[in-house]
Amino acid sequence: MKKSNKKVNAAIIIIGNEILSGRTQDVNVVNLSTWLNKLGVKVEEVRVIPDLEDSIINTINEVRKNFKYIFTTGGIGPTHDDITSKSISKTFNLNYGKHPEAYKLLEKYYGTDNFNKGRKKMAMLPTKAKLILNPSSMAPGFNVENVYCLPGVPSILKSMLGGLTNKIIGGKKILSKTINLRTVESEIAKSLEKVQNKYNKIEIGSYPFFKKGKIGVSIVIRSTEEKLILACYKDIERFIKKKRIRIIKKG
Amino acid sequence: MKKSNKKVNAAIIIIGNEILSGRTQDVNVVNLSTWLNKLGVKVEEVRVIPDLEDSIINTINEVRKNFKYIFTTGGIGPTHDDITSKSISKTFNLNYGKHPEAYKLLEKYYGTDNFNKGRKKMAMLPTKAKLILNPSSMAPGFNVENVYCLPGVPSILKSMLGGLTNKIIGGKKILSKTINLRTVESEIAKSLEKVQNKYNKIEIGSYPFFKKGKIGVSIVIRSTEEKLILACYKDIERFIKKKRIRIIKKG
Repeated sequence: MKKSNKKVNAAIIIIGNEILSGRTQDVNVVNLSTWLNKLGVKVEEVRVIPDLEDSIINTINEVRKNFKYIFTTGGIGPTHDDITSKSISKTFNLNYGKHPEAYKLLEKYYGTDNFNKGRKKMAMLPTKAKLILNPSSMAPGFNVENVYCLPGVPSILKSMLGGLTNKIIGGKKILSKTINLRTVESEIAKSLEKVQNKYNKIEIGSYPFFKKGKIGVSIVIRSTEEKLILACYKDIERFIKKKRIRIIKKG
Repeated sequence: MKKSNKKVNAAIIIIGNEILSGRTQDVNVVNLSTWLNKLGVKVEEVRVIPDLEDSIINTINEVRKNFKYIFTTGGIGPTHDDITSKSISKTFNLNYGKHPEAYKLLEKYYGTDNFNKGRKKMAMLPTKAKLILNPSSMAPGFNVENVYCLPGVPSILKSMLGGLTNKIIGGKKILSKTINLRTVESEIAKSLEKVQNKYNKIEIGSYPFFKKGKIGVSIVIRSTEEKLILACYKDIERFIKKKRIRIIKKG
């Protein structure tokens, strides 16, 4: 895993009517963000867009200038609604056609007799794209410039991340510390704001939760600087003690 | 529930670092989309953006022109990272301050003695906003023009939708029919494409799945026209029978 010291950001584009309609619960954002966090890449925007060529082209053209890395999920399978490869070709003015390396991989995997039209479609890519190998079902993802196109099926997507790790140059790893309290947000809002104002390089999030019929608040401290996180954490512990708020969990 | 015959669309803006970081799994998109579908409103874009004023203002200004309804979630609580109300005020050049109606509701709910600074912050809104009532924890959401701001906590958000239903004027209801097959996408890709080409007013989606170690494909037909869905469904059944593919489930 290569490293840079700069802040490195990313956007995730989920391509899929099934997510927009509410039929399918997306889990790829959590999987991708968690993986990227470990590499020191901060996801700063997510978009979910329909399986429409214009939407894909316009969205990619808008985000690819603003973020270091773009990851797309969905639309690289064999059916008529899988239009990511063609749309990305158009986005970058690249030829869309039989990708020799992908074709060979798929032909070998399925065997010449079972390599039908649907399966051959999965070798139709921007012809200059770099492949992202797929250890679970062979149909590859692909990479053009800073755009990495992955499948929509979560288990397949996850299986492909290991092979991608070396290609992503991350920045400083984003560290976090969480403290769960038996309180309500309004009880700690003022004190927490004071701490946030003291540490402007730290991101402090406050999230109310309900678990087993009881309410609580998670405070999450995020930064690339471990020392700052610890100092900030101590300040938070201090006011919690003073207010006699019960700590449920630290981590 | 009022109705129009036009296509009515919406965008959902999820405001929250915790979703971007992968720490929290969003479920509000599924809940909002499912509710909107029933009202005849089609969600055509989702964005997840950070708790940053500029991101909120720029995103809302971009999407509010392109969609009939905008729903935001998150950032309306009492802590320092809750900046949706202030940001929406700036987006629309409205005064941000004590909203008399919200203040009264919250004061009554908490009682004068417990109405602390954090809780008072939840009455700080665009002063001209219409309130969206909150039956579970009182802190209201709000509406400015075509933008509806809801909380991030899923159970609270869901409790507020009932009261909003009358305010959303939907179009024709989007109907759907699903058929789950024991097959792989590449086996049906060509036949399915033919059916899609025949029915250009229908959206046919094909989604591979893995359940209990077995693979399958869900075909989802979506349209506002029930007759078209049924005709399309029959055509799909026809090629499935011909190919001797097993139907796992219809619905």
